[in-house]
Amino acid sequence: MEPELIQHLRSTLVGNPRLRIGLGDDAALLDWRDRDDLVVTTDLISDQVDFLLVEVDPRRIGRKSLAINLSDLAAMGAESIAVVVSLLLPRNPPHGTTLQLATQLYEGMIPLAEQFDCIIAGGDTNSWNGPLAISVTAFGACGEAPPLVRSGAKPGDLLLVTGQLGGSILGSHFDFTPRVHEGRKLSLDRLATAAMDISDGLLLDLSRLLKESDLAAILDLPAIPTSAAAAQLADTTGKTPLEHALADGEDFELLFTASPETAARLVAEGIAGTAVTAIGTLVAGEGIWADHVGGRRLQPQGFLHA
Amino acid sequence: MEPELIQHLRSTLVGNPRLRIGLGDDAALLDWRDRDDLVVTTDLISDQVDFLLVEVDPRRIGRKSLAINLSDLAAMGAESIAVVVSLLLPRNPPHGTTLQLATQLYEGMIPLAEQFDCIIAGGDTNSWNGPLAISVTAFGACGEAPPLVRSGAKPGDLLLVTGQLGGSILGSHFDFTPRVHEGRKLSLDRLATAAMDISDGLLLDLSRLLKESDLAAILDLPAIPTSAAAAQLADTTGKTPLEHALADGEDFELLFTASPETAARLVAEGIAGTAVTAIGTLVAGEGIWADHVGGRRLQPQGFLHA
Repeated sequence: MEPELIQHLRSTLVGNPRLRIGLGDDAALLDWRDRDDLVVTTDLISDQVDFLLVEVDPRRIGRKSLAINLSDLAAMGAESIAVVVSLLLPRNPPHGTTLQLATQLYEGMIPLAEQFDCIIAGGDTNSWNGPLAISVTAFGACGEAPPLVRSGAKPGDLLLVTGQLGGSILGSHFDFTPRVHEGRKLSLDRLATAAMDISDGLLLDLSRLLKESDLAAILDLPAIPTSAAAAQLADTTGKTPLEHALADGEDFELLFTASPETAARLVAEGIAGTAVTAIGTLVAGEGIWADHVGGRRLQPQGFLHA
Repeated sequence: MEPELIQHLRSTLVGNPRLRIGLGDDAALLDWRDRDDLVVTTDLISDQVDFLLVEVDPRRIGRKSLAINLSDLAAMGAESIAVVVSLLLPRNPPHGTTLQLATQLYEGMIPLAEQFDCIIAGGDTNSWNGPLAISVTAFGACGEAPPLVRSGAKPGDLLLVTGQLGGSILGSHFDFTPRVHEGRKLSLDRLATAAMDISDGLLLDLSRLLKESDLAAILDLPAIPTSAAAAQLADTTGKTPLEHALADGEDFELLFTASPETAARLVAEGIAGTAVTAIGTLVAGEGIWADHVGGRRLQPQGFLHA
């Protein structure tokens, strides 16, 4: 990492007693006492695939690079603890210098990291003649609580989703709030039988959950919560808001299953302040169906990341 | 990650009981019982900066991306436990398909990971129109043993180095063996007062160790172990083998300090089967000097990674 950036980060990042060795040595060393597990995820985003550097404030890009990783920890029901960041910076960014770009990316990450009590423990900074890419690896722990996995759904469970779906391209794919608190509560209180986050679109991600749980789903299409952005986008695309909610990528909401009793309570009360909606039922078999098995079959379309 | 690649990796990677949840869920979950700390490092390499994809077997590139991270764990004295890998793959690689390239990169990593009992716990695979980049994040633990840091050297300590230095560009920057066992032994047996790995060149990295330890070093230039590759390279560059040993990057040997008694024993016996050479003495003050403080001052030149 460049000395100027290390200096800047050292003066910006709030010291955390859990970070025993931080920036400036060969590796970071975190206190991991009283934790029996390590949950790890890594996600990389790049210019012209996941964002357009010429158009977007680098702070929003930096924020997104962290938020998508926190969303994966959320999908496991893990507490977020720390991240490391690798930057691959263009030597001639569209605005400002390479160092300014790096600084702005971190300025976008730091408030989100603080919001989720997540230590930025270190990183690697490189410049090259190619476009911007950011790789973040996040660490958490489930501790005593069972991790949320995709494979635990049972026939008769209801299918649930946090928040609203669709239209993330209008801005929420940068500014969404990762559902870390919601996932953690699902795990701690043993509420979900299976869970994942929606990154590639409801239908496509649901098909993955169904495959791991070896089940089919019957969707209650009118119940699916469509976002205001999905409606706004539908005005220009000729699709319906529901179609956007079914297939748009990067909602980063939680998709999960629960017993009917638990589902009823979550729908009534929400979870950690976030709305929960029941959108279908899990049954034996395979595929995603509208109304009933053997009725209209929905293809697992979605936004496939390159 | 692409389904074909997940399938290939699932059938290739040896199951490890410590990996409780692996490829195919939102994050990996590792058993971390009986470990009190988490050592984390991340290092990214990219085409045309760290290697030339048109010229080099992707297996060597994949191996390097892992080896440089293991070297950072070695520099902390940590046991290597697991890694995650983010690939940014060109849509049109110079040879074969994108999937073949990804597979070959992993084929280069897997034997090295097995050699160091390191789990490949997951990753993210992306393709784009830019060049190849590989980001690896490695996790380990020091456990009961104190971590090796750069700041612990004392006046009167000797400066030591494993192996031979210089000329890595001729091949060893791909094929070097990360000094994980050596670093671990330094840590477990409390042999080193400070340590780091040499990634940017002896003089430049030494200057960093000296800064963190707030000391000067007097180098015994004739004692510095120059590699056969440094001699071979000197034939064409007009520099001396010693100049290559002092300033070439990517040796990935360990540079460390120890009391004179410990140093004498390590020089006589080696460590974990690797030769150790004493190359200087730590003294109060600042700077790197040949022969004595106030004599010839050596500038901390080296190979600065972009």
